[in-house]
Amino acid sequence: MQLKIGLIGLGRIGKIHYNNIRQQIPEAEVVAVSDVSNDYSQCDVAGIDADELIAHSGIDAVVICSPTDTHASYIEQCARAGKHVFCEKPLDLSLARIKETLKVVQECGIKLMLGFNRRFDPNFLKIKALVTDGKIGEPQLVKITSRDPAPPSLDYLKSSGGLFLDMTIHDFDMARYIMGKEVKQVYAAAAVLTGGAVAEAGDIDTAIITLKFGDGSMAVIDNSRKAVYGYDQRLEVFGSEGMANVDNNKPDNHVFYHAGGVQSSLPLHFFMERYTASYLMEMRLFVQAILEGKEIPVDGMDGLKAVMIANAATKSYKENRPVFIEEIEV
Amino acid sequence: MQLKIGLIGLGRIGKIHYNNIRQQIPEAEVVAVSDVSNDYSQCDVAGIDADELIAHSGIDAVVICSPTDTHASYIEQCARAGKHVFCEKPLDLSLARIKETLKVVQECGIKLMLGFNRRFDPNFLKIKALVTDGKIGEPQLVKITSRDPAPPSLDYLKSSGGLFLDMTIHDFDMARYIMGKEVKQVYAAAAVLTGGAVAEAGDIDTAIITLKFGDGSMAVIDNSRKAVYGYDQRLEVFGSEGMANVDNNKPDNHVFYHAGGVQSSLPLHFFMERYTASYLMEMRLFVQAILEGKEIPVDGMDGLKAVMIANAATKSYKENRPVFIEEIEV
Amino acid sequence: MQLKIGLIGLGRIGKIHYNNIRQQIPEAEVVAVSDVSNDYSQCDVAGIDADELIAHSGIDAVVICSPTDTHASYIEQCARAGKHVFCEKPLDLSLARIKETLKVVQECGIKLMLGFNRRFDPNFLKIKALVTDGKIGEPQLVKITSRDPAPPSLDYLKSSGGLFLDMTIHDFDMARYIMGKEVKQVYAAAAVLTGGAVAEAGDIDTAIITLKFGDGSMAVIDNSRKAVYGYDQRLEVFGSEGMANVDNNKPDNHVFYHAGGVQSSLPLHFFMERYTASYLMEMRLFVQAILEGKEIPVDGMDGLKAVMIANAATKSYKENRPVFIEEIEV
Amino acid sequence: MQLKIGLIGLGRIGKIHYNNIRQQIPEAEVVAVSDVSNDYSQCDVAGIDADELIAHSGIDAVVICSPTDTHASYIEQCARAGKHVFCEKPLDLSLARIKETLKVVQECGIKLMLGFNRRFDPNFLKIKALVTDGKIGEPQLVKITSRDPAPPSLDYLKSSGGLFLDMTIHDFDMARYIMGKEVKQVYAAAAVLTGGAVAEAGDIDTAIITLKFGDGSMAVIDNSRKAVYGYDQRLEVFGSEGMANVDNNKPDNHVFYHAGGVQSSLPLHFFMERYTASYLMEMRLFVQAILEGKEIPVDGMDGLKAVMIANAATKSYKENRPVFIEEIEV
Repeated sequence: MQLKIGLIGLGRIGKIHYNNIRQQIPEAEVVAVSDVSNDYSQCDVAGIDADELIAHSGIDAVVICSPTDTHASYIEQCARAGKHVFCEKPLDLSLARIKETLKVVQECGIKLMLGFNRRFDPNFLKIKALVTDGKIGEPQLVKITSRDPAPPSLDYLKSSGGLFLDMTIHDFDMARYIMGKEVKQVYAAAAVLTGGAVAEAGDIDTAIITLKFGDGSMAVIDNSRKAVYGYDQRLEVFGSEGMANVDNNKPDNHVFYHAGGVQSSLPLHFFMERYTASYLMEMRLFVQAILEGKEIPVDGMDGLKAVMIANAATKSYKENRPVFIEEIEV
Repeated sequence: MQLKIGLIGLGRIGKIHYNNIRQQIPEAEVVAVSDVSNDYSQCDVAGIDADELIAHSGIDAVVICSPTDTHASYIEQCARAGKHVFCEKPLDLSLARIKETLKVVQECGIKLMLGFNRRFDPNFLKIKALVTDGKIGEPQLVKITSRDPAPPSLDYLKSSGGLFLDMTIHDFDMARYIMGKEVKQVYAAAAVLTGGAVAEAGDIDTAIITLKFGDGSMAVIDNSRKAVYGYDQRLEVFGSEGMANVDNNKPDNHVFYHAGGVQSSLPLHFFMERYTASYLMEMRLFVQAILEGKEIPVDGMDGLKAVMIANAATKSYKENRPVFIEEIEV
Repeated sequence: MQLKIGLIGLGRIGKIHYNNIRQQIPEAEVVAVSDVSNDYSQCDVAGIDADELIAHSGIDAVVICSPTDTHASYIEQCARAGKHVFCEKPLDLSLARIKETLKVVQECGIKLMLGFNRRFDPNFLKIKALVTDGKIGEPQLVKITSRDPAPPSLDYLKSSGGLFLDMTIHDFDMARYIMGKEVKQVYAAAAVLTGGAVAEAGDIDTAIITLKFGDGSMAVIDNSRKAVYGYDQRLEVFGSEGMANVDNNKPDNHVFYHAGGVQSSLPLHFFMERYTASYLMEMRLFVQAILEGKEIPVDGMDGLKAVMIANAATKSYKENRPVFIEEIEV
Repeated sequence: MQLKIGLIGLGRIGKIHYNNIRQQIPEAEVVAVSDVSNDYSQCDVAGIDADELIAHSGIDAVVICSPTDTHASYIEQCARAGKHVFCEKPLDLSLARIKETLKVVQECGIKLMLGFNRRFDPNFLKIKALVTDGKIGEPQLVKITSRDPAPPSLDYLKSSGGLFLDMTIHDFDMARYIMGKEVKQVYAAAAVLTGGAVAEAGDIDTAIITLKFGDGSMAVIDNSRKAVYGYDQRLEVFGSEGMANVDNNKPDNHVFYHAGGVQSSLPLHFFMERYTASYLMEMRLFVQAILEGKEIPVDGMDGLKAVMIANAATKSYKENRPVFIEEIEV
């Protein structure tokens, strides 16, 4: 049996999912795609209207890669049409809206998976396995370094929800995932240090966020929108029995020694190169979860929690004080 | 325009090429496959007799992944049918036979590419680029470490042509490729140290082979059929202006520190994992070379030269003396 | 000319300085030593009372390695006796007392150097040089990992002044040193996660401290009193033009590959092994600064500032809020 | 009890031993030194004639760091005077002369240690321990990379005995040491690739030497007199149960990432920086072996064997054929 998929949104990530399903996931098929541009020149399948796609009787599941402000409506539409959903993060910028949507999802009994792709990176999976297998002992500290090679455009920034909701949200999810615990308190120190579009958009570009879990363990995330040497994605977990960390992936592992010094390759440039394997794996797991009735590995509550932490971080930064997650819950 | 391909031989490497073409090389299509087993259950395309496949009017090029002793005949058949050929190494175990075949290839004017896939590994490509760009200065030494995780079966060993023709042949090609020069003399020290099937087959399993090029520069290769820690594929080039080397690829880059020591992951287990990217790239280059009339990156002469060096190594080992390549030429 | 030195306190660090001066700093001589134990069996020089030592007319400079609560008095005594002083950190646990002492030092015109030895570690010196040379561009983030292999004894903990004054104080100094800027605000998240002596002493053992500098740049320090894999001392600086980091030093750089995995050596166990080179270098610089009239590389104000940051961290932790340094200044 | 030492030869290595004994080996004392220059301005002890030094009744052991052609005579003189000897490598360039000298040493019953300092490098000691502890299983291959940063002067080269006796001799000893077996056959491929002084001296500068041990196991050494990136000293051992290797030591472990690439530090420049720890350790072991009546860790036979292998390598290179060690034995 093959899962019939409809895909909404053919931007960068939409195309990644499209190609992955068609080329490397034989147990699924893309039946139709939809994009506001109505440009389907790069696709071999039918390009149709989103409403039509969601209503399509030959489609079992919908992959939503459209802009954030359309996520909630599309998910609800899918839920009501009985279609399972894979949705890119974040669910929505509004917590109230997310809760509504999750209620619809639950009522309709569909499966919803959130695209926190980094959980499926082979490096982070290895770290998670060390934690789960007890090799680290009781985890006490998680450290996440997450830096982009360059800030997005002013347009993108304006509708992004800000650094914490757009970028750090991945790291908030990662901290919860690695620790297997819920965040209780957030303190965010941040600044505008790169100037340019970020300043113009009224956003921040550099941050250190400290998370406290209920049992006293902690996580710390550092972000920058502009790492001139490329995409910097590292993680470390420290516990009572040991410590494990992962470095960036590189396109090759050459080392060149010459009279002037020693040189090697820069990290893979950005998320499309770095997370190639994890984009494929998350989609494969989504397809299998539905076909085989297994549990969804990243669900709606994971999407909700990440936004709650992001909101707490925003509040913490603005008020320059630690914010408890329970202050965020409405 | 799409290149129509027939594929002969559905063993491990045949399947790699089959999947790569179908999933990741949209400018080519596998039209038919052929395997002595007549088992085509894992294929979506027609399974037919090899003769039929070669004669097929809808096929432009043939990918030969069948056993070595069929290579020469198939190539000649393809050449006479006007089909371009991608053939796995080695061309044949007999130099005379190879020369006959290359003559037919030349007369018929088809393109022939040899499957020295390692040339297209991102690590080795980087080293080659450093040499070509003059970063290393005049290359003086190449060092290749090439060790398999475990010896093949007795059956395989018996018809393999021996360590130098079966395994080191890749390293001989690599030495020529990196240096961009021809080998003049070979000295091979070797032994049977792992026992078992290798001893029974009358083969060797451990070797150090020193190559001299015409200008005094040298290469040294070390081989083992049994590296308990996995597939060991490293390379170093040393020259007047610097040195560059590459280490093994690993499935992840985690490092785990605990009270008893520091641990990390073993190298990727064998050629299918290690050379995933290079298998894809070589086939893509083959397809493009034909479609766009470009030069074949690894041609019949490369196949011939590698066998000549392997024969010199065999002779050197048996007679325990350096052997000049010109002794091999008939 | 040779600098005549008296040394007070023959504990672990006292002995390091004693041996370094005698064996590797020919331009200085240890004339006398003093220890409350009155046990001088391991010394080749006169063991005398501390007051006598400070008053000794044949002594130019005093190295103070006695317990923290004696530092201020000894420094003042030395200053009044016209002796230059090298003093281990911290100057004192009380800011008021430190200020008094620094006033005496200034009035008497002696040179005072603080033992922030880590500044002289070859790794951290390299990072500092990259910052100073502008290679990093404008420094925006400093990350310091500083973990001890095991908590000290209950007795030690009780009089240590707590984690921030005893252990993090080195990291506070390092953050100031690398950034070349003053800290404006401190937020400390901390917990007792190792139990045992730390809990009994009413201290904390795990912390993440975020520092904000005046220009928006930041530093983050993570501490643990118990890293089962040994002394963990790493540093990273991130700026507008690049990023540089240093890993732990190891006793050897072997890598061992076997069927079960890949192993390497643990970091050097503790400060005596890790900071061998920096203890020697700081003393050499102290001696040279006096003999050649050069500037002291770590002065009394550096000692004062580090204690102020530690006090702010303590206050921040207790009140769970960011604390401005100006709140600390009396 | 303190060992009274006389030291002959105050060149680079003589000074290293002089300083090590005086500063870091309290159980020994340098009583007198001797140098043909008669310049003792950098020494604090009596500078006397070599004959006088050897005859000196207050001296227990002599450290010989004078030119190679004086080693044999001095050792014999010392032996007859009942003085233990630590002698830099090689014992002599003539095998016959070495045998005479060893006979005298044996007759007189003194202890003779050869300065194969690399055996005491912490990295190589770790590799040796892994072999001895059986972690590698049965060792099958040893690979040694040994390259100097720049060729010595023409004068030095002329009296050096050639690459194999001057430089590779360390590697020959290392191969025997790591394997714990005797070499049976040598094949040396070599060339003059750097030109300059080496060519003028009629020597070679680049070599790959393959050693066969009696049981089929092998070693391969690669040498260059001119590695523009510095002193390159690496070692790998491969066996039935695993593989271990060590890389070069560096002055620091920083990694600097910028827009143009990733940079780190060059290896320690030359033997004085790289083998600091091993020079100290070998002298300490020499002193302890005599004071405590322990076995000498590197004895006269080790010196003899290394020269025999070097002679075999020279013969192999000149005749372009493998040479059996038994061809060398007179």
